[in-house]
Amino acid sequence: MPHFDLIAFDADDTLWHNERLYTQSQARLAALLESYGVRAETLDERLYQTESRNIQLFGYGIKSFALSMIETAVALTGGKLSGTDTLAIIDLAKAQLVAPVDLLEQVGETVPKLAARHPLMVITKGELLDQENKLKRSGLAEYFGDIEVVSDKTPQSYASLFRNHALEPERVLMVGNSLRSDILPVLELGGWAVYIPYPDTWLHEAAEAPAPGTPRYYQLESFERLTALLETLEAPHQPA
Amino acid sequence: MPHFDLIAFDADDTLWHNERLYTQSQARLAALLESYGVRAETLDERLYQTESRNIQLFGYGIKSFALSMIETAVALTGGKLSGTDTLAIIDLAKAQLVAPVDLLEQVGETVPKLAARHPLMVITKGELLDQENKLKRSGLAEYFGDIEVVSDKTPQSYASLFRNHALEPERVLMVGNSLRSDILPVLELGGWAVYIPYPDTWLHEAAEAPAPGTPRYYQLESFERLTALLETLEAPHQPA
Repeated sequence: MPHFDLIAFDADDTLWHNERLYTQSQARLAALLESYGVRAETLDERLYQTESRNIQLFGYGIKSFALSMIETAVALTGGKLSGTDTLAIIDLAKAQLVAPVDLLEQVGETVPKLAARHPLMVITKGELLDQENKLKRSGLAEYFGDIEVVSDKTPQSYASLFRNHALEPERVLMVGNSLRSDILPVLELGGWAVYIPYPDTWLHEAAEAPAPGTPRYYQLESFERLTALLETLEAPHQPA
Repeated sequence: MPHFDLIAFDADDTLWHNERLYTQSQARLAALLESYGVRAETLDERLYQTESRNIQLFGYGIKSFALSMIETAVALTGGKLSGTDTLAIIDLAKAQLVAPVDLLEQVGETVPKLAARHPLMVITKGELLDQENKLKRSGLAEYFGDIEVVSDKTPQSYASLFRNHALEPERVLMVGNSLRSDILPVLELGGWAVYIPYPDTWLHEAAEAPAPGTPRYYQLESFERLTALLETLEAPHQPA
């Protein structure tokens, strides 16, 4: 039977709602660009292109998103974007950075139970300051020993992080909503992974799910089921 | 005599030139705003104010700087900043993110010597992706076991980092160009600190130097003197 030395969690859309703040900002930008005759579908498509192009340089997070929004808005308005509207875009980013942290259902109740039996860690590729601030605002900071920000979630970045914390991958369970970032790389290293799908996951994070029956892989429909899954997995007579 | 389990380095303006890239971007922004009748001194003053106001939300690094440049430029031009010039500001940031990494004098020769005898780490409060990329471009990545990005360099953030790496502060030597961020917090924890001043340090980093004779504190005029200092400090008959 496995016994876990660490339960690690993705943060955005695993512990708290996140993608919908981006969707909201994008909808506000669409409303703002309407007066320039820009269609919302055009914005969505071009913004995604800009973000994909910029990600290698800018990385993930709200500031990258803000710069990509400005770049796209200037391009789509033929350079006519007003100064006021440029500032309005920066303000969208600032509002996102201080938005209340909205926990996913049952997270607030479940995390303390998990923390009572295992060390917990957040592993995220957002921006350090923003994620630290969100963890503080979430009211859950006391349950997480650590917050680790990686520039990308690859098998290599997980391997190096586990090595730094003197952790064996086969004694780590990672929980997340992105197959590509949270699940597949951890399984590849020999770790355990729990996929909790979130309805509104960014296109960039799409990947194919592991085949049913893949060892060390579980899919749950809700966060609260984690406690039961862990009890089963760590039960004395459960074959690994 | 002390023996060090880790030598940690600030990166920007300790290992490689950095501040002058910001100064350069700012000079280019000043040139761009001249045609709007904005004076360079006014820009310098207002940009510093904007950055200081935004830092709590945006943190450190090039993307924050870009957003503050745009915000300041729109304000100083009374909203008349053109779309082309807005994109030009984003391009300044992109250029900074791919700028060649220019090592400080003797860093390239000294780091391998230090790495032969001690584990080395980079501790920085820039942006993770940007700092990782710079370390790769610097040609020094192989000598550093780790790069750690902290959202601020306080005694608390150093303490937590040292604890995570199972390091005793009194067995760590931190090298940096900022008294406020690299030297004072490490001394406060009981660690050792070497201050190597950089001529062009950001106003925000200013602090008073420790009094002469402060224990565990050294000031060097050049990076290459580190090897000699370490030999002296770790010599068998050197009193601590």
